[in-house]
Amino acid sequence: MDRNLYTDDHEMYRETVREFAARVVVPHRERWDANRWVDRDAFVAAAKAGIYGLQIPEAYGGSGESDYRYRMIVCEELARSHALSFAVTIALQDDLVLHYLLDLTTDEQRGRWLPGFATGEIIGALAMTEPGAGSDLRGIRTEARPDGDDWILNGQKTFISSGIMADLVIVAARTRAQDGDAGLTLFVVEADMPGFRRGRKLEKIGLPGQDTAELFFDDVRIPAKNVLGEVGRGLRHLMSHLPRERLGVSAGAIAVSRAIFDETRRYCFERHAFGRPIGDNQHVRFELAEMDTELDIAQAYVDRSVLAYNAGKLSPVDAAKGKWYLSELQKRVIDRCLQLHGGYGYMVEYPVARAYVDTRIQTIYGGTTEIMKEIIGREFSG
Amino acid sequence: MDRNLYTDDHEMYRETVREFAARVVVPHRERWDANRWVDRDAFVAAAKAGIYGLQIPEAYGGSGESDYRYRMIVCEELARSHALSFAVTIALQDDLVLHYLLDLTTDEQRGRWLPGFATGEIIGALAMTEPGAGSDLRGIRTEARPDGDDWILNGQKTFISSGIMADLVIVAARTRAQDGDAGLTLFVVEADMPGFRRGRKLEKIGLPGQDTAELFFDDVRIPAKNVLGEVGRGLRHLMSHLPRERLGVSAGAIAVSRAIFDETRRYCFERHAFGRPIGDNQHVRFELAEMDTELDIAQAYVDRSVLAYNAGKLSPVDAAKGKWYLSELQKRVIDRCLQLHGGYGYMVEYPVARAYVDTRIQTIYGGTTEIMKEIIGREFSG
Amino acid sequence: MDRNLYTDDHEMYRETVREFAARVVVPHRERWDANRWVDRDAFVAAAKAGIYGLQIPEAYGGSGESDYRYRMIVCEELARSHALSFAVTIALQDDLVLHYLLDLTTDEQRGRWLPGFATGEIIGALAMTEPGAGSDLRGIRTEARPDGDDWILNGQKTFISSGIMADLVIVAARTRAQDGDAGLTLFVVEADMPGFRRGRKLEKIGLPGQDTAELFFDDVRIPAKNVLGEVGRGLRHLMSHLPRERLGVSAGAIAVSRAIFDETRRYCFERHAFGRPIGDNQHVRFELAEMDTELDIAQAYVDRSVLAYNAGKLSPVDAAKGKWYLSELQKRVIDRCLQLHGGYGYMVEYPVARAYVDTRIQTIYGGTTEIMKEIIGREFSG
Amino acid sequence: MDRNLYTDDHEMYRETVREFAARVVVPHRERWDANRWVDRDAFVAAAKAGIYGLQIPEAYGGSGESDYRYRMIVCEELARSHALSFAVTIALQDDLVLHYLLDLTTDEQRGRWLPGFATGEIIGALAMTEPGAGSDLRGIRTEARPDGDDWILNGQKTFISSGIMADLVIVAARTRAQDGDAGLTLFVVEADMPGFRRGRKLEKIGLPGQDTAELFFDDVRIPAKNVLGEVGRGLRHLMSHLPRERLGVSAGAIAVSRAIFDETRRYCFERHAFGRPIGDNQHVRFELAEMDTELDIAQAYVDRSVLAYNAGKLSPVDAAKGKWYLSELQKRVIDRCLQLHGGYGYMVEYPVARAYVDTRIQTIYGGTTEIMKEIIGREFSG
Repeated sequence: MDRNLYTDDHEMYRETVREFAARVVVPHRERWDANRWVDRDAFVAAAKAGIYGLQIPEAYGGSGESDYRYRMIVCEELARSHALSFAVTIALQDDLVLHYLLDLTTDEQRGRWLPGFATGEIIGALAMTEPGAGSDLRGIRTEARPDGDDWILNGQKTFISSGIMADLVIVAARTRAQDGDAGLTLFVVEADMPGFRRGRKLEKIGLPGQDTAELFFDDVRIPAKNVLGEVGRGLRHLMSHLPRERLGVSAGAIAVSRAIFDETRRYCFERHAFGRPIGDNQHVRFELAEMDTELDIAQAYVDRSVLAYNAGKLSPVDAAKGKWYLSELQKRVIDRCLQLHGGYGYMVEYPVARAYVDTRIQTIYGGTTEIMKEIIGREFSG
Repeated sequence: MDRNLYTDDHEMYRETVREFAARVVVPHRERWDANRWVDRDAFVAAAKAGIYGLQIPEAYGGSGESDYRYRMIVCEELARSHALSFAVTIALQDDLVLHYLLDLTTDEQRGRWLPGFATGEIIGALAMTEPGAGSDLRGIRTEARPDGDDWILNGQKTFISSGIMADLVIVAARTRAQDGDAGLTLFVVEADMPGFRRGRKLEKIGLPGQDTAELFFDDVRIPAKNVLGEVGRGLRHLMSHLPRERLGVSAGAIAVSRAIFDETRRYCFERHAFGRPIGDNQHVRFELAEMDTELDIAQAYVDRSVLAYNAGKLSPVDAAKGKWYLSELQKRVIDRCLQLHGGYGYMVEYPVARAYVDTRIQTIYGGTTEIMKEIIGREFSG
Repeated sequence: MDRNLYTDDHEMYRETVREFAARVVVPHRERWDANRWVDRDAFVAAAKAGIYGLQIPEAYGGSGESDYRYRMIVCEELARSHALSFAVTIALQDDLVLHYLLDLTTDEQRGRWLPGFATGEIIGALAMTEPGAGSDLRGIRTEARPDGDDWILNGQKTFISSGIMADLVIVAARTRAQDGDAGLTLFVVEADMPGFRRGRKLEKIGLPGQDTAELFFDDVRIPAKNVLGEVGRGLRHLMSHLPRERLGVSAGAIAVSRAIFDETRRYCFERHAFGRPIGDNQHVRFELAEMDTELDIAQAYVDRSVLAYNAGKLSPVDAAKGKWYLSELQKRVIDRCLQLHGGYGYMVEYPVARAYVDTRIQTIYGGTTEIMKEIIGREFSG
Repeated sequence: MDRNLYTDDHEMYRETVREFAARVVVPHRERWDANRWVDRDAFVAAAKAGIYGLQIPEAYGGSGESDYRYRMIVCEELARSHALSFAVTIALQDDLVLHYLLDLTTDEQRGRWLPGFATGEIIGALAMTEPGAGSDLRGIRTEARPDGDDWILNGQKTFISSGIMADLVIVAARTRAQDGDAGLTLFVVEADMPGFRRGRKLEKIGLPGQDTAELFFDDVRIPAKNVLGEVGRGLRHLMSHLPRERLGVSAGAIAVSRAIFDETRRYCFERHAFGRPIGDNQHVRFELAEMDTELDIAQAYVDRSVLAYNAGKLSPVDAAKGKWYLSELQKRVIDRCLQLHGGYGYMVEYPVARAYVDTRIQTIYGGTTEIMKEIIGREFSG
């Protein structure tokens, strides 16, 4: 069904993204995975090509374009390039980090950080999760105590996406533990601050090119000008950015699912077994028909969410619905697509195999499926 | 999420439908079920209130309103009245029979049938399925042979919705068996034609007030003026009406699912067990959260389909996707809602119990889930 | 795979049950359903034929045979006769009521009740559930206060299987509310006791021939000799009978599922569509293969449970695992079998249609699936 | 429920296996995975400890013990050591290769190969699959033409487990293409035969320590004494070994599933979130309860299969049922267990993460789930 989502401008932008992917991404993606590292200059090239950071105001080197449909097109085209480690890193910048820097910053801060972000030279990370707390923001133990105009930060974070690569890390820390659970503040820790140390690059079963790390903060002195937003309002600041983060996961999920599905559909009519294309099996046709349907159904919701987001009306709960549903759908679709590939589906050289391992984190990060259901379920009792 | 589907006019119409349901439907629905028959005057009242037949041109007593969103509102409000036998009968008229009478008729035929349809005094049925053929239109054996300007119809149909009640029955019959499988023609058989006989009102596990019947045609003489559309083009005529029929099932499915879900959600916070509302159980909250999500996701697709239909762009395949997915979703949702009611869910007096048995036909009639998947899957090989 | 469960004696008994079913059950099952009542003399015939009550000691007119494999054969053969209302009523007697009368009774009580039970003239019921309490035994409000040697019983029960038919009803009542939640006692209320009143025969969506009722107790005077087991030990008595009750549901579930599956398998190769048996569709073959596998897998567990029960080693938790899994499997299998029947599956005259509505209570009564999971899950934390 | 499967002798053997796993496997498994290679001397140690090859007659250095329960215990204990690459390699030897060498060999062949197998010095592989044929044995193109008393082998195989490590490879080749599809013969190709070349060690998403390879045969001269079984009877020979191969997958699947489940259950009560063990969440308890039930149900079937196999009565179809069901169950269970670990489940250092990627091949190799369903479904039409 015609999605009625994109204008000609969007489709022209799609050409840009495709050209970028063919030029910068596809030739390197396997090396990035093998090296467990995406080249830094790929982000510079991406920023230059307008693949991310579009929303940065022109004054700081961006395009001031906040229409999420451009972002959606990036998701779709990077998914077709089968470079998920790169796509996820870009998503982290554009769907998560950038919005903290746009929404919570002072003019001075914007002047310091946005230009570098706009050129792709500054990569950011968001550090919420802690070893003992998981999804529980109220359980955060990383702590910042005031010291004159500065703050002294102590603590430890884990599972931090781009934690190794990041030039600046937005850290959620407890600032007034005595006041109960509301006392979180966000701080921007910069790479060269004494006492900031990166731990291991964690070895994951997927997304090899996307780094995930432990971070340590030992008496890191943070100047007041690196406080992000209001002191003590960190929880609220985090909450207010959830719809975008969740939408980002949904958008990535539908794009990857559709890309792998399309590749699988082709495979089923190229690959022969027992003297005919495997797609001639009724079972295979039914599998494809079911997935195609489920993808179209879910796409309608994502598209609706994109328009609601553009209109400033995407609620955290509606975004949570998309987040869990789409990420679970992605898991289900990729798994079935892999099965249709038979033994080849288990071989790293096939996109579906890489997508399988890259996908498994989707129902976990950005709030697990279970957390999303809690958030949705909480609404009912009222 | 805001559906952005309806205007104020639609919402005003909703009030009309609500008032109608409260006045005409709710007081009688249990009796209708018990009698296995909906009162004929309910259809007259419905037509008068503009609940169906809206699309009939003003010249024939209708409103000439073809916007499917009005139909969608009828689905939603009749679902809330928990009178599915009535709702399904209305759907049959408005999503199926009427369109044959609007699209394939001559002026003379319109003049004969549409005014009665517009007042609710003429109820129609569509007779395709035969005992030996099921979903296989090419296997139809009912046959009409020319006899002067008339046709002589012989054969048998089964599973005909409203077969007992119908004043006119559109019958698909083979007219030129010698030409291969394409020789189907549609005929309008009227109630008083000699040789037309109704068989048993079939006893179903659900939809008790909606009649389903076997029909027999023994040398029924049909005048040429009762041929619908072109001779020999019956298969094409049937095919061209599938999108609307399938959309009708999808619209009914989402409406019933949402209505029963809403009722169940309330139940879960009114009903107590082990000293607290059952909705306080995490399991129950998760069940509700999952269903609410699945319904919202699917609603987005149905709404998109409605707009595509209004624009004349809903393809048979896209409608098939909706048909199977929504009817399976309805089954799944009603079943889970029933379980949340515990023992009460098994008692006929609870809407969820009646909905459970009424729902089971949804994945079967109008083309089974399996037929829909065949239709969708066929597209891939090209 | 060979079940290795039955000896020649069991297979000979199977012949007896088959003959009984063909003679007493099959000719009447449709009338029983239509009348919403199984003839009382069917139970007399069943008892006479040794279909139930086998375990009653010879001194009281039974066979003293406690091997559950005989019971399993009754489940299998009654399932093949597609008379679930009768089968469930028999199960209630043999898997539930009888064991209270065997295990908790005095010699005097056995002498009063067992001979009538052995001839099929006394039908019993167990009344636990109350309108406000559901599965929560600790929430029981029906109350008995001592009055001399007698007890005065007041309260109300609902969802009582065979509540209308029963000659004696085992009622769980609170006897010492002041002592906390442990004060339940079991009483045998007999049909003619003043103050005992049957409410409505509840209208269910399935099991029409099996009666389910509300029961009312208004100052019913119960002599001490009708106390069952120990005063104040009712909860423990109820708990100790759970393994058998749960095993009974599992045994019935696998038997009905296998019977309907076998009937469906035959149907798929008799019924033709598009010019060939529907079983020639790969999708249908896969459906059958999946169900056949799932049934064999589950059968192995039920058979193992039967032997464990015979050895006195079936734990409440292991029985709970079987109860929820098998009843959910039954739901799943019957639903898929119905779908394979197409439109015929919705018609009451087909066994699969009746089985569909009869089945829906299985995951609810005898402890819902959710309660079973609670019981199983509780074990883990230790 | 007590499995009633093992005697004291089996439990004593379990101690042996445990000791072996702790001494030889656990200290090295991570290195094996990192190196993508299991040390050859681990197999020597395993053979010496009686971990595999038990069934080899004493005359050739084995124990002549054919009771599959010993093999089952190896599955269970290696699963607990979380060294699946090693476990799968052992399974290949013991459930697949060995039986060709035992059943199809001449005395002379046994004398040549079994002693080395019994000491762990000879590792075998079975080469059936070809790039173009997949599961379709009749599509095999590798060909052997007679040349005097020898045969000249040409062709290519892929997805060959232990293809790199193997000292001898059993190759299925077409010997009389002119006679239709029956002309397969099995040959033993030894490592040093000219023209036998190993291709790439394939890079898989899991089972890193277990090698999978392409093999090439260019004019490999094979002496008549290396023909295995009868010329032209290869298909029959392959078929006759399927029950054992399938049972092997089932046995491994239940063992791994149970081991990861047990580890996850512990994790859920050690790991805290929101101030309490995550196992205190009803959702988590239900997840655990469901998995525990499904595992117990399936275990009953595997145990029954083991006894049937011991009795020579496990049919290919019954083994196929186990193969697909257990491997799908393993996938399902491991996936859910991973989710319960949250972010940790994605980290290679956690057994559940490794098990996730190692598991994905289970529903594919040894005959895909779809092939198994075909095999089962074929039985019904008769």
